[in-house]
Amino acid sequence: MNSIYTLTATCPDQSGLIASITNCIASNGGNILNLAQHTSVDLGMFFCRIQFAAPSISEPDEGGKIFSPASFTADFSELAGKFNMEWKLYDKSVKQRMAVLVSKTSHCLYEVLLKHADGQLDCEIPVIISNHPDLCSVATEFHIPYFQIDTQKGKEACEADIQSLLEQYKIDVVCMARYMQILTPEFTRRWDNKVINIHHGFLPAFKGARPYEQAWKKGVKLIGATAHFANQDLDQGPIIFQDVVRVKDTNSIHEFVEIGKDVERRVLVEGLKRYFNHNVFIHEGRTFIIE
Amino acid sequence: MNSIYTLTATCPDQSGLIASITNCIASNGGNILNLAQHTSVDLGMFFCRIQFAAPSISEPDEGGKIFSPASFTADFSELAGKFNMEWKLYDKSVKQRMAVLVSKTSHCLYEVLLKHADGQLDCEIPVIISNHPDLCSVATEFHIPYFQIDTQKGKEACEADIQSLLEQYKIDVVCMARYMQILTPEFTRRWDNKVINIHHGFLPAFKGARPYEQAWKKGVKLIGATAHFANQDLDQGPIIFQDVVRVKDTNSIHEFVEIGKDVERRVLVEGLKRYFNHNVFIHEGRTFIIE
Amino acid sequence: MNSIYTLTATCPDQSGLIASITNCIASNGGNILNLAQHTSVDLGMFFCRIQFAAPSISEPDEGGKIFSPASFTADFSELAGKFNMEWKLYDKSVKQRMAVLVSKTSHCLYEVLLKHADGQLDCEIPVIISNHPDLCSVATEFHIPYFQIDTQKGKEACEADIQSLLEQYKIDVVCMARYMQILTPEFTRRWDNKVINIHHGFLPAFKGARPYEQAWKKGVKLIGATAHFANQDLDQGPIIFQDVVRVKDTNSIHEFVEIGKDVERRVLVEGLKRYFNHNVFIHEGRTFIIE
Amino acid sequence: MNSIYTLTATCPDQSGLIASITNCIASNGGNILNLAQHTSVDLGMFFCRIQFAAPSISEPDEGGKIFSPASFTADFSELAGKFNMEWKLYDKSVKQRMAVLVSKTSHCLYEVLLKHADGQLDCEIPVIISNHPDLCSVATEFHIPYFQIDTQKGKEACEADIQSLLEQYKIDVVCMARYMQILTPEFTRRWDNKVINIHHGFLPAFKGARPYEQAWKKGVKLIGATAHFANQDLDQGPIIFQDVVRVKDTNSIHEFVEIGKDVERRVLVEGLKRYFNHNVFIHEGRTFIIE
Repeated sequence: MNSIYTLTATCPDQSGLIASITNCIASNGGNILNLAQHTSVDLGMFFCRIQFAAPSISEPDEGGKIFSPASFTADFSELAGKFNMEWKLYDKSVKQRMAVLVSKTSHCLYEVLLKHADGQLDCEIPVIISNHPDLCSVATEFHIPYFQIDTQKGKEACEADIQSLLEQYKIDVVCMARYMQILTPEFTRRWDNKVINIHHGFLPAFKGARPYEQAWKKGVKLIGATAHFANQDLDQGPIIFQDVVRVKDTNSIHEFVEIGKDVERRVLVEGLKRYFNHNVFIHEGRTFIIE
Repeated sequence: MNSIYTLTATCPDQSGLIASITNCIASNGGNILNLAQHTSVDLGMFFCRIQFAAPSISEPDEGGKIFSPASFTADFSELAGKFNMEWKLYDKSVKQRMAVLVSKTSHCLYEVLLKHADGQLDCEIPVIISNHPDLCSVATEFHIPYFQIDTQKGKEACEADIQSLLEQYKIDVVCMARYMQILTPEFTRRWDNKVINIHHGFLPAFKGARPYEQAWKKGVKLIGATAHFANQDLDQGPIIFQDVVRVKDTNSIHEFVEIGKDVERRVLVEGLKRYFNHNVFIHEGRTFIIE
Repeated sequence: MNSIYTLTATCPDQSGLIASITNCIASNGGNILNLAQHTSVDLGMFFCRIQFAAPSISEPDEGGKIFSPASFTADFSELAGKFNMEWKLYDKSVKQRMAVLVSKTSHCLYEVLLKHADGQLDCEIPVIISNHPDLCSVATEFHIPYFQIDTQKGKEACEADIQSLLEQYKIDVVCMARYMQILTPEFTRRWDNKVINIHHGFLPAFKGARPYEQAWKKGVKLIGATAHFANQDLDQGPIIFQDVVRVKDTNSIHEFVEIGKDVERRVLVEGLKRYFNHNVFIHEGRTFIIE
Repeated sequence: MNSIYTLTATCPDQSGLIASITNCIASNGGNILNLAQHTSVDLGMFFCRIQFAAPSISEPDEGGKIFSPASFTADFSELAGKFNMEWKLYDKSVKQRMAVLVSKTSHCLYEVLLKHADGQLDCEIPVIISNHPDLCSVATEFHIPYFQIDTQKGKEACEADIQSLLEQYKIDVVCMARYMQILTPEFTRRWDNKVINIHHGFLPAFKGARPYEQAWKKGVKLIGATAHFANQDLDQGPIIFQDVVRVKDTNSIHEFVEIGKDVERRVLVEGLKRYFNHNVFIHEGRTFIIE
């Protein structure tokens, strides 16, 4: 079987970019399956995501050759230097490892685990970490180790425990699935653009605590949720995915919370899908989803 | 033909409200066509909108009697006093008169005039006022007087001119259909909850100028518009209607503006419909749309 | 604590209906919490759903009286006779009992069980029945008995087994949560308007088998799902709830199936919510959802 | 200024397609602005739309060369032959000419003309043809010739008159903006995939007359509209764009019609936009919108 790779590249817009890139892939034996590209007229920047198949040891090409990531990297680095390009190559067979942080509510955790079991999230989930015992049974159903951290010890010790677990389980990315603690700037800096949070409000409105109550008091007619990278500015990191749902003015605050759950879980999973599919580019403090 | 009335009533929630109200209507000869009611568990408040038909001079009831607004008012006032109720009675045959304020862009004005011509806005539109000459031809197409005010004279003189036109045309409510001037607190206080504005952003996010540019820079995934009452706090008055549309990260700021136009015009007209249908209740700084 | 009742009533439209109904409730000691009513101009029919609180043994009114369903029924029957009304009174403390029929796919079953556990479905779920063993573990997680019927025995024997389980568990309503067998007319007649099915297409288009493949081949731009009562006409029973989701022409048939799952589970649960909240009226072969 | 071209190409999927195509563009001096591509796993077909800028007489490249459509066509034809490719090259400066057919209702015509005036439809509209006089004033507002055909003469003579006007005005494509006559198979065959109709129903459900009444009687919960190519099978030609809007069961048939107007006009314009942007590919009886 062929290997599948995804190449992402960003650079200032210039003439001949796509031809140069696609030639480099072709000359290394790659066959493009999917190419999505965007040139921002507002920024003069070029963003590109290419998925390609390439001959592997189990299925070499007619001449017996296989795709060599090392050779490709050498070739592409030269091209990248010329175009002042940032780029990455992902091998589909190497799954990213995601830890899930949770507190007490189960709807986001269930959604992540069910969609993962259904093959819709291209990652591994080796560990679940919580500041409460409540969701241990859910983890058990899905045969994933669950660790409860002791928040009595203080935030610093707590995050040290989390960090230690992330290292132990060789974690690449952290998902906050309604984890109701604020991470320290030290933590988010260390895991820069590697912590994905679901906020139960349509950011940038309704940052911080009790967003549904804020929304109800304001009398908004749609409520939403936002999957975003957590950084040192609370609920202000780059937005990955958002959605809203229409509410009625006859809905209570409690009903906003209930209705919102469906949006939250959907938005979180859609955000994670795009992350693991390498559709997410970050530039000048915002994302560009290229798909 | 029967006359059609709409009754709106708000009061603290109590037992027996609906039976009392519907009895008062029935005993005055009214036949309920439509009743919408909401009790807010969060506020302990009761909101009610009732549309009823009643025998008129042209179609008295079998006993020859007609509905008397004066008698009804006497009866209902007693009941309202008992329940500490705020209420209003609207006669459908008495149309409210709306002035439209515009600047240069035509999409909202066209929408208001086309929907009005199609019978979807239950009001009269006797005058259009602008700080620019550009949309005079649109007004002419629809046979509505158009006045251009001279912003060189300063905001105060300008608003005096507007006020004078509103009085001359016996205006009840003012619609800002992308009127790009900020009204003074004096003006909005005088026309309290009588000025409806369309803001081209999903409030409370993106208040003020250039909301689409703000939204683009933030990388939001949906953009929206908000119809709201204009008051002394810029873009913070009670929200009447909102909607959003999904955008792609490959859209430019310019495309946001283009895409947004459709949302703006739709939201403005939906807000106006609800206003003229007496669905809009204001309580504790927000609206309750009861429909 | 007060008891909560829901009254549903349908009749030809006439003058004085709401006042008569609300008076009957008030005179029996009921306090209306919520009233939704609709008069269809196309049919000349009146539909009404009223939720009211009434003094119970545990909380009698000031005079020591309690609401008597028997007295109310006597009073209301007289009124109903006069207006040629069909009506029902539901006591909120008496939960309906729902059986869930499934085959191999879990997404709808999980959704029903998770929403039920979250308190969003006002019913009991005492049994799950399947023609396959696959979902037994899901039932076990939620501590609900699971029975596998043997389809080798033929449809008649199979449905006899189902019927026997439904009787044994005193079932009121049956939910087909992606149960991939067609029920016989005998069965659906016996359970007339008591079997709720989720069809994975936007009915009335794409009836029958493989609706996503039909939709893909037709090149439709939105795919949907439909919760409806199953009757003897395949996928043609009255529609309870529907929703759609936009697809791209770059989606494969397989992706339609994946994307569709989210719509199916949401639509099924929204349909069930309305059913158990007594919002669903059936008239002239279609539903009227009054909420 | 550079010239802008759009290239569309379809062929069986093969290795090296994108590199070959982009090289051919680059070697002819083209600079790719935008590339969208799709490989259908269900059909094994490749679809590609590429927009590129190329040096024109007014702005030759550094070496003084300009892009020659003739040379490109020679080069690309060779490549196309090798890959068994269907393709077309569009010069953005050559606008397509669209005739609009209407009957009595104005909402779709207004939308087409307003969006065209706003620069959102990349075509010319040299003529409007109707079987009624009603919309002549709208055409006049926008300074477009309006012709009323005489349906008394019979369908054949009528279509002969239309055909004659289409030839006189050198029309490329015909838009039926709520034109309430059925075209003959002879006409649609002659204008194969060149007649775009707006159907006021969510096809393939509710073909033919009175789709809103059909929808109401069926009790559907969303109503829609469909922009599609008209062919000899009534309302069955390839679908270009669709959308729906949620309705309430308290809406009358008349309200369905009113609500539907907004969907119709939006869907028609979105369909036309995609057509004139060359996003619409037709394969095996359905469209693939590649954008």
